[in-house]
Amino acid sequence: MEQKHRVVILGGGFGGLAAAQKLKQPQVEITLIDRRNFHLFQPLLYQVATGSLSPGEIAAPLRGVLSRQKNVRVLLGEAVDVDPGARRVILRDGDAFEYDSLIVATGSQTSYYSNDSWREWAPSLKSVEEATAIRHKILYAFERAERAVTPEEARAWLTFVIVGAGATGLELSGALAEIARETLRHDFRKIRPQEARIILLEGAPRVLGAFPEDLSAKAEKLVTRLGVEVVKGVMVTNINAAGVTFKRGESSELLAAKTVLWAGGVMSTSFGERLAQRTKAETDRSGRIKVQPDLTVPNYPDIFIIGDLAHAVDEKGKPLPGVAQVAIQGGVYAAKTIRARLKGKQQVAPFHYFNKGEMAVIGRAAAVANIFGLHLSGWPAWLIWLFIHLMYIVEFQSRVLVFIQWGFEYLTFSRGARLITGTAATDSVTKPETMGNTGDGR
Amino acid sequence: MEQKHRVVILGGGFGGLAAAQKLKQPQVEITLIDRRNFHLFQPLLYQVATGSLSPGEIAAPLRGVLSRQKNVRVLLGEAVDVDPGARRVILRDGDAFEYDSLIVATGSQTSYYSNDSWREWAPSLKSVEEATAIRHKILYAFERAERAVTPEEARAWLTFVIVGAGATGLELSGALAEIARETLRHDFRKIRPQEARIILLEGAPRVLGAFPEDLSAKAEKLVTRLGVEVVKGVMVTNINAAGVTFKRGESSELLAAKTVLWAGGVMSTSFGERLAQRTKAETDRSGRIKVQPDLTVPNYPDIFIIGDLAHAVDEKGKPLPGVAQVAIQGGVYAAKTIRARLKGKQQVAPFHYFNKGEMAVIGRAAAVANIFGLHLSGWPAWLIWLFIHLMYIVEFQSRVLVFIQWGFEYLTFSRGARLITGTAATDSVTKPETMGNTGDGR
Repeated sequence: MEQKHRVVILGGGFGGLAAAQKLKQPQVEITLIDRRNFHLFQPLLYQVATGSLSPGEIAAPLRGVLSRQKNVRVLLGEAVDVDPGARRVILRDGDAFEYDSLIVATGSQTSYYSNDSWREWAPSLKSVEEATAIRHKILYAFERAERAVTPEEARAWLTFVIVGAGATGLELSGALAEIARETLRHDFRKIRPQEARIILLEGAPRVLGAFPEDLSAKAEKLVTRLGVEVVKGVMVTNINAAGVTFKRGESSELLAAKTVLWAGGVMSTSFGERLAQRTKAETDRSGRIKVQPDLTVPNYPDIFIIGDLAHAVDEKGKPLPGVAQVAIQGGVYAAKTIRARLKGKQQVAPFHYFNKGEMAVIGRAAAVANIFGLHLSGWPAWLIWLFIHLMYIVEFQSRVLVFIQWGFEYLTFSRGARLITGTAATDSVTKPETMGNTGDGR
Repeated sequence: MEQKHRVVILGGGFGGLAAAQKLKQPQVEITLIDRRNFHLFQPLLYQVATGSLSPGEIAAPLRGVLSRQKNVRVLLGEAVDVDPGARRVILRDGDAFEYDSLIVATGSQTSYYSNDSWREWAPSLKSVEEATAIRHKILYAFERAERAVTPEEARAWLTFVIVGAGATGLELSGALAEIARETLRHDFRKIRPQEARIILLEGAPRVLGAFPEDLSAKAEKLVTRLGVEVVKGVMVTNINAAGVTFKRGESSELLAAKTVLWAGGVMSTSFGERLAQRTKAETDRSGRIKVQPDLTVPNYPDIFIIGDLAHAVDEKGKPLPGVAQVAIQGGVYAAKTIRARLKGKQQVAPFHYFNKGEMAVIGRAAAVANIFGLHLSGWPAWLIWLFIHLMYIVEFQSRVLVFIQWGFEYLTFSRGARLITGTAATDSVTKPETMGNTGDGR
């Protein structure tokens, strides 16, 4: 029997899944290893955090997605080390897998810029567990405000701070504003949810720094109209039980807030660091591995890095952003390269990222989009956002469900998934208890 | 201003919610206190545990359900004590609420018959957290079997034991059989999920002890046809990491199983015990408080107990079962009694439980039902089960969603909510980590 070409793919996110699906050749034998048993549609994770969708609606079991592709074996496991000489990947439980080609798509983790104590007070939006924890935190805050004894206490429970005004920060703050002003409007007797303060803090001089300037201005206008206070050009210096401390120019301010959400940067995972060590590869400031034009690690043409862990550059030498599109195109490219090599072709054209554009959604009928250089905002951008996201989850069982859920919500302003789970209501619990370890080797 | 009649309701389950909804009189002021912020449609919880539904689809936020009823205030909190003399309820955080009428609907908790160490190995199906933990356990077992080194190890991961063959035990084992035989059929490369053993253990000589005998026989036949092994007349003597030990006659057997689910009995909560102490009320063997014919505690006509915590009896002196119908009718009765008293009427007819029947669902097109004495099984029983359950969740936003989800599943055998969440995949984690405290004061 002919020897098969063994491809090990680490991570079943956008990049890893795309790579697997583009390697259907029978002479290829794929082992896809992920810490989780599901592929997560990350761009809609904020909707889980804000109670619009249930986790099951934006996740698909990897086994289910790949069950018909007979050359793929899906394994639940966490890669912790790699031996590039022996071409082996080692899992946490000690199991090792040999590869002929390795595709690393393990992604990134949230960076608190070396302030790890902030993590406790300001969850980020990386995993399903964190999304559920954020939902818990938001809904619980209104409950606590209703039972607060002093007005100051109520005020602190009704103050929500989002740190970072990228797409995730805008999505979260916009959704929070809608929850306070619409969804919960009639649900309380003592407090008025619509008086909640939602404050979006950003270090840069504008929101959506990665977008063209006119769209940044539009986005700020849209989110402000929803009732979010946008504070730019500030530097967060502390986050603790009392709230957020930040510097604006020379002065330092404390925002008394019981709910702080982190929508800041990302960094490499410990598996990423290990891989860089083992291959002696160069990394950038946030720990991403600098890859060759063909997405492989220097000196290791059999190791591809795709998605958030890769520091790849465009024609102008600018690093590519950590978005789904880059990961997917990277996965497709790695698969194509492996196929070409199997046919004996060693030279493959370098990876070229085809940027279709970017978009951020702020609320109902409120979004901004840059599509092939065309700048849109408001209704048109929102409809395109809706269309694209519905199309993407076409492979998910739940597409119809999400659509109906959204339609319902749009008509009624209600949110279907408003559960506080994970911990019973006790007075001392104000921070989420069920946050998973979202660190490494995803 | 006229003094309002203060009703405190503890628990927003079927009983508490029904009571609140039947007390719309403006002279009544209701405070509904629950540990959770949502009402749970418990009869469908097994569908969350077996990956068919997401938690959000069978839960409705209490505030949302009651938002239009202006005389109700909903509070998130846990009752820990009551002072029946001063007519005050005390919450865990020290807050106290005075009442003119108290409706206690705090429910029951799972009983492991004084073997509390079993809880760790055999989760029960009481809360959303436990349902998610069970889902985790089931799906994780197949993943581990796929990676098992020895056939014995694989066999232990593919052996599922359900203890208790009441309605919940049958539902769980039937759903598990369908997962193994249909849903996961094509998803693995090494193991054959359809070879999983699913064993239903029961102490009594027949399954569904509360049902008529012919329906017990039917139910056993239906669940056996799905591939479940039913073992009756056995006594479980131990549950640990190795599996379940049970006695059959004189001999003792060990079933090597990595997944054990508990569908045994229920008992009073610590709040229930405290209430019994404070009111010097008599309790039955499982700690339920023996109530008067009008569902009040002896000597305390202002304290009603409804639902699982009440030991109420029918005309023949037989205790009423702990099912949703009894709780709902109890809640409606308590509300009616309070309304009558407000009109100056002190004598109210005793509570009479109107038994509409009982049903248990086993799988697709497989159920048994006893409706007004009419015994049904198979297709007809299943259709009625489907209809009744859809009608019940009519007040839930998610009715349409559940319907579509079921339709989809019926056609495709797929399950939409197959997420292993709550803990990353590590080798040592085999028991759920996120099980909430499901004990008291719900």
